[in-house]
Amino acid sequence: MMSKVAFQGEHGAYSEMAAINYFDDLDLYPLKSLQDVFYGVENNTYDYAVVPVENSIEGSVNETYDLLFDAHLYVCGEIYQRINHCLISNINGDGNIECVYSHPQALAQCRGYLNKKGIQSLPLYDTAGAVKYIKEKKILNAAAIASKRAAEIYHMKILEESIEDKKNNYTRFLILSKNTDNNLSNSKTSIIFSIRHIPGSLFGILEEFAKRQINLTRIESRPTKEHPWEYNFFLDFEGNLMTPDVNELIDLLKLKTSFIKILGSYNRGIYV
Amino acid sequence: MMSKVAFQGEHGAYSEMAAINYFDDLDLYPLKSLQDVFYGVENNTYDYAVVPVENSIEGSVNETYDLLFDAHLYVCGEIYQRINHCLISNINGDGNIECVYSHPQALAQCRGYLNKKGIQSLPLYDTAGAVKYIKEKKILNAAAIASKRAAEIYHMKILEESIEDKKNNYTRFLILSKNTDNNLSNSKTSIIFSIRHIPGSLFGILEEFAKRQINLTRIESRPTKEHPWEYNFFLDFEGNLMTPDVNELIDLLKLKTSFIKILGSYNRGIYV
Repeated sequence: MMSKVAFQGEHGAYSEMAAINYFDDLDLYPLKSLQDVFYGVENNTYDYAVVPVENSIEGSVNETYDLLFDAHLYVCGEIYQRINHCLISNINGDGNIECVYSHPQALAQCRGYLNKKGIQSLPLYDTAGAVKYIKEKKILNAAAIASKRAAEIYHMKILEESIEDKKNNYTRFLILSKNTDNNLSNSKTSIIFSIRHIPGSLFGILEEFAKRQINLTRIESRPTKEHPWEYNFFLDFEGNLMTPDVNELIDLLKLKTSFIKILGSYNRGIYV
Repeated sequence: MMSKVAFQGEHGAYSEMAAINYFDDLDLYPLKSLQDVFYGVENNTYDYAVVPVENSIEGSVNETYDLLFDAHLYVCGEIYQRINHCLISNINGDGNIECVYSHPQALAQCRGYLNKKGIQSLPLYDTAGAVKYIKEKKILNAAAIASKRAAEIYHMKILEESIEDKKNNYTRFLILSKNTDNNLSNSKTSIIFSIRHIPGSLFGILEEFAKRQINLTRIESRPTKEHPWEYNFFLDFEGNLMTPDVNELIDLLKLKTSFIKILGSYNRGIYV
């Protein structure tokens, strides 16, 4: 059966490439906002969401973390998508580019290149959406930054490839669904917790991981939004919720935290 | 002697309000980018920089963290500025607003309000800059989100006050200079460090703080940009570099980290 997979952006977005690389059979649903993607899966309109959570250069996608906190969804997979930005213009442009449209993260990833060329950055909601925008508006003195695939989909001209400042550019995408994927082969687990602001409380949590030699792969904090300078911590670690040691650890964390949410166990993602 | 204080944005920006609230005598220098602000102090063009580092709702300002890592500047103070967003239009507008310009963080902080009203968000480089933009372009069907002070400076109309979704909205600003401020009254210290990606290494650092009952007030991580999924950690804690226990701690951290940078000790900031 085809999976209905929602992502943020237009056809040709990096999220769509990650979805195509992750699923064998899928129907793709491009949506305007990340919030729409989360809601669509919560409401059973779609089976899965593919959402960016972190880029190797620009760091965390804050909106995804905040939506993960609020949503009733589980993480059931991840994939690492190579980001290779192209400078894209209309077919009939003369290559004289004064400004460039793209998603703020893509603009940030090409900051050095754009500064050197003296091209002004103009943020839009999506990389592929920026290609669509300059095509529909027939803008000739502006380019878009997006994937090669986006240029092909919209039949546009690639002025330059690989314009990102750092070549180690990958985005980690999470696959979300309404169901947990309990499987003994799962190698990673994600949780969210909050602690009261007392000395040593974060240390007291990490201590439990260190004692069991469970490797943390990521720690991220986001404001609780209720009390200034209090944080929710997002933790990814190597381990499976179905094993006794992780189970025991989670039981202990329930006592040591003021809030805990289990996002699920899943297989470590591949690089594509 | 007047201090030359640089900030990012136009006159009326929240950074400017923070600067005015922090310094008694100052000359203000509005600059286009955060990078310009950092460079300007490094080059001795200005004495101090006032830069946003974290908002209580939206979280860290990534660009500031990345610039702090690269810059040869010290933290010599902090201040917590209340953020109170107004919806601002041209004097002769009829109140029929279809879209709104502002800094992406300000737009994010008013997301609920804007969604409810069905107003489209358009990102610009600065809140006060958005007010200036709709004034200069004489745009009547768009508003700006900025401070009351920005509306006054540009003689614009306030359509609505306090439109931010959460009222606990503060931004923490850091005061930067080329000199450390060694003073025994300093109550906080900021450092940056990186560790190799091995189990328990972050734990091994936090352990040293816990042992000495030194309270962490903030931990933030940013990608190193050199190796994917390796991080620099930014740590703020209660303590003064001039005291023996913090001194001893720093010496130990030098052995336990692959990189460490001392940003300085300073006085805990006030709320304004």
